[in-house]
Amino acid sequence: MTTIQGLLRRYLPILDWGAQYTGKTFTNDLIVALIVTVMLIPQSLAYALLAGLPVQVGLFASMAPLLLYAVFGTSRTLAVGPVAVASLMTAAAIAPLAAQGTPEYLGAAIALALVSGLMLIAMGLLRLGFLANFLSHPVVAGFITASGLQIAAGQLAPVLGIHAEGETFVEIVKPLVRNLAETNLATAAIGLGSLAFLFWSRGSLKPLLIRIGVGEKTAGTLAKIGPAVALVVSTLAVWGLGLAEHGVKIVGDVPKGLPRLALPPLDMALWTKLLVPALLISVIGYVESISVALTLAAKRRQRVDPDQELIALGASNVGAAVSGGFPVTGGLARSVVNFEAGAETPAAGAFTAVGIALVTLFLTPLLFYLPKATLAATIVVAVLALVDFSALKKTWDYSRADFAAMAATILVTLVEGVEAGLVVGVGLSIFLHLWATSRPHIAVVGQIPGTTSFRNVARHAVVTDSEILSLRVDESLYFPNARYIEDRINEAVAASPTIRHVILECPAVNAIDASALESLEAINHRLKDGGITLHLSEVKGPVMDRLKRSHFLHELTGKVHLSQYEAVASINPDLARRTRDAERAPGTGGKP
Amino acid sequence: MTTIQGLLRRYLPILDWGAQYTGKTFTNDLIVALIVTVMLIPQSLAYALLAGLPVQVGLFASMAPLLLYAVFGTSRTLAVGPVAVASLMTAAAIAPLAAQGTPEYLGAAIALALVSGLMLIAMGLLRLGFLANFLSHPVVAGFITASGLQIAAGQLAPVLGIHAEGETFVEIVKPLVRNLAETNLATAAIGLGSLAFLFWSRGSLKPLLIRIGVGEKTAGTLAKIGPAVALVVSTLAVWGLGLAEHGVKIVGDVPKGLPRLALPPLDMALWTKLLVPALLISVIGYVESISVALTLAAKRRQRVDPDQELIALGASNVGAAVSGGFPVTGGLARSVVNFEAGAETPAAGAFTAVGIALVTLFLTPLLFYLPKATLAATIVVAVLALVDFSALKKTWDYSRADFAAMAATILVTLVEGVEAGLVVGVGLSIFLHLWATSRPHIAVVGQIPGTTSFRNVARHAVVTDSEILSLRVDESLYFPNARYIEDRINEAVAASPTIRHVILECPAVNAIDASALESLEAINHRLKDGGITLHLSEVKGPVMDRLKRSHFLHELTGKVHLSQYEAVASINPDLARRTRDAERAPGTGGKP
Repeated sequence: MTTIQGLLRRYLPILDWGAQYTGKTFTNDLIVALIVTVMLIPQSLAYALLAGLPVQVGLFASMAPLLLYAVFGTSRTLAVGPVAVASLMTAAAIAPLAAQGTPEYLGAAIALALVSGLMLIAMGLLRLGFLANFLSHPVVAGFITASGLQIAAGQLAPVLGIHAEGETFVEIVKPLVRNLAETNLATAAIGLGSLAFLFWSRGSLKPLLIRIGVGEKTAGTLAKIGPAVALVVSTLAVWGLGLAEHGVKIVGDVPKGLPRLALPPLDMALWTKLLVPALLISVIGYVESISVALTLAAKRRQRVDPDQELIALGASNVGAAVSGGFPVTGGLARSVVNFEAGAETPAAGAFTAVGIALVTLFLTPLLFYLPKATLAATIVVAVLALVDFSALKKTWDYSRADFAAMAATILVTLVEGVEAGLVVGVGLSIFLHLWATSRPHIAVVGQIPGTTSFRNVARHAVVTDSEILSLRVDESLYFPNARYIEDRINEAVAASPTIRHVILECPAVNAIDASALESLEAINHRLKDGGITLHLSEVKGPVMDRLKRSHFLHELTGKVHLSQYEAVASINPDLARRTRDAERAPGTGGKP
Repeated sequence: MTTIQGLLRRYLPILDWGAQYTGKTFTNDLIVALIVTVMLIPQSLAYALLAGLPVQVGLFASMAPLLLYAVFGTSRTLAVGPVAVASLMTAAAIAPLAAQGTPEYLGAAIALALVSGLMLIAMGLLRLGFLANFLSHPVVAGFITASGLQIAAGQLAPVLGIHAEGETFVEIVKPLVRNLAETNLATAAIGLGSLAFLFWSRGSLKPLLIRIGVGEKTAGTLAKIGPAVALVVSTLAVWGLGLAEHGVKIVGDVPKGLPRLALPPLDMALWTKLLVPALLISVIGYVESISVALTLAAKRRQRVDPDQELIALGASNVGAAVSGGFPVTGGLARSVVNFEAGAETPAAGAFTAVGIALVTLFLTPLLFYLPKATLAATIVVAVLALVDFSALKKTWDYSRADFAAMAATILVTLVEGVEAGLVVGVGLSIFLHLWATSRPHIAVVGQIPGTTSFRNVARHAVVTDSEILSLRVDESLYFPNARYIEDRINEAVAASPTIRHVILECPAVNAIDASALESLEAINHRLKDGGITLHLSEVKGPVMDRLKRSHFLHELTGKVHLSQYEAVASINPDLARRTRDAERAPGTGGKP
């Protein structure tokens, strides 16, 4: 019975926090839910439009996922639902498969959520969360920046009331500039007005509220519902001034009522086409979500289980799919609001779902005159916060390889689209890592007088013996660098005819794979043919354990020494001891 | 002028050895060429058939490439020409594009040699030879074994005179077994007879010759021309006994004369289709060739330049293409014969080319009655020497990851074909490396009494402080493991509420990339929120240089210490010194 209980507790974190749930927590979570609901409504509607879907789909995607995350999630404060980047990726994935506005398009979005959800659950059960690590930080940062630019550019057209479509940033910018003259003035007034208000409320509303006496926390929370205020004001303006007749596009009729629960049709051909985009959305969504969850959890010293989070996000997406929604994940802005408003348990999320359900049941008629330009403006403001060019400079300063991966991700995403951008980014960062480790740093080392330490001859005043070549390889020995190391040793030996012994110092060699073992055997064999002995020193325990399972140690012409000093002392004890006992030269004690 | 001379010397090694060429070397190289010519004729004919091409194409591919390698190659003894694996890969690449026996098929083979040659030259000029390193040793070994099996299975059909075709081992075996009853007896007599003779001559001819008084070296060389003897005897048998009328398939009319030099037509559509197979053939060919060249060069302490070898092989393939041949590379067997017969310079190869040219000019009528079964038998014997299952056992013992890559390469090659096998093998070995480094060995370390050394608490009797957590990460910190290390530190800290200091000991950290830097910043930040200080120790020079270019060192709550001892001593000097000065416990001085 213990194991079943253990399994239940592991896969259903709700059993943990649910058991300690009190009336006080309930009241608190309820208030938080009210705030988050008000914030979520504009986002849900806007991101549905961004994905090319009817607005109510955004509301649907903000109910079941929140409820399911409350059951399965390990973060106390993460809020799941439609987010900007996943919505853009959804549009990119489905656009080639169906025309926007058709039932097939909606069906494909639902199927995408389902496939993505099942994938996430499978990854969670198989503990494959580490796959997300292959998205390096610079690639994710570059991808988010480029996606933000593309989304912002795409939403400028509805903000201005002009027509400009395209599947990449580059494709969108051209018609945007060309059609600028067709700007609809009424739409632009609403759109640019909303933009201005939203930018202002993001930057200046909180200080203003604090100045007029509102508490800092409350002020921060109130500032976050700026989009809801913009929605209400602009809806009233369109209705009162009859702007819809002046060409302002409005949301119009939104069907009232909750979504019907239904399994999407089992269409294997469609699902197969969605496999790659679903994988990319899953992984990007997971990476965003888990980093938000970890950051918030750390602030309260709570724990988040990365593998269980996969299951929770998977369940949320399956929930979205069976209730007519589209792909969802944990969002930064809403989770921070949830956290700062004081959410104590995932129940706050469940109550938010109820709030959204009430809106869907009773308030959709109020959305009739809501101008699409305002929704587009909320998206622009939200995504421009994601665009971060300073990371490019920071990465350039730190590592050229990481900068290359980041820049390539940005460029390819802007020019070729989100999927190509991600694939190129991941491929390039793996390649650059392999390339760097394929030509490791190899130092010729010598003994520092007055010590038993050995250091790079190029950086320190050290003592060497013309018959002994001591090399320190600063990398694990494995297939991409095996032959490089062979070549370097061959060269070094060919250049110095006096060499009789080669010692490889291995403190930084964390592994030796089968290819490197072959290379070591070849090196040993060739050196032997040339009358030169090969020794190793400072081989790590696990590496030594493995070498003992091969024939190499029997064939090795020299020995494996515990330390580099012992290795040199076994060949030329006089010189080693004389150097050790010599006066220590000034300024040679530094590392390494 | 010096630079032009330098470039000429670098790219034209013939200038080096040509200047010292003497009459004695000439005589010697001439004798070697005669031996190699006799050995090459059956191979050239057989491998052309294996690639699905007319026999004379094999002869064409053994002339220009040898001449060009003599000009550009850096190995004194490598012999280039058609080889088994490249011939199989050629057939696999072209079969989907054209029907065997058509001019289009031949044209595609020629184009493949050209594309592959241009690729190799480009790789050589751009110094991209390291790309070949991504073929790990187990993948190459597995690929060669599987290719050998597939070739041998494919050649059993002509040996027995039955019909069995297929593009993979699995596809070939089925019809082979099914059609066994259709064996042509005359063909099988010739084929199995040749097989038996060739196996015998490979194993027992040399000892026999030595016993009857032939010198050991001469005996070895004579044993290698067994295939030529089989050709002559079986041709005479077919001619004398009129076996062609009993269903024995013969080579028939071979057009006399040298190939006409011509550029293959510039067919971009065809070339594009050949890009991937050409890359795979180039890389596999290069890997085989360079390892033969390095091994032979080491025996005489000569040098081989891996980048120049790319150019030489590229030139050889371009030469093959413009003279009507197909892809070539350096072959093991012929190079060993060349070496053992005493070749001193690449001129021996050039003379061999002349020998083949003479055969092509004057002796092709003698090939009319040559039975294809004998050629197939020479292939079977040659490739079975490549099949090495013992490597599977050896690799299993040493490394399960390498074994997995090897086994997958063999299986996929047998079932799905050569290209799929190689791609899966390379992909899997890269993935397994990334996977292994994504969960590195992390040891909790403590101080060994009587020393300033720190070792794994799980392996040694060491002293620790309940307020200090000392961790040694045995891997570079980079994106696949950045979050794993974060998780492990979070867990360790969450498990021990007494911890006030975390020290990361970094002697095995050869690099810290931008993702890992973000993780370190996050770890530092979260530990700070929990009132815990983060320190580093034994950071390597190049890693430290890079960290100094980031803000991390300013934000770090603790310090970077030169040694782990100094780090601990800065926090709890009493305990560190007391432990250092304590009696050294017996048996705790071992490594690490």
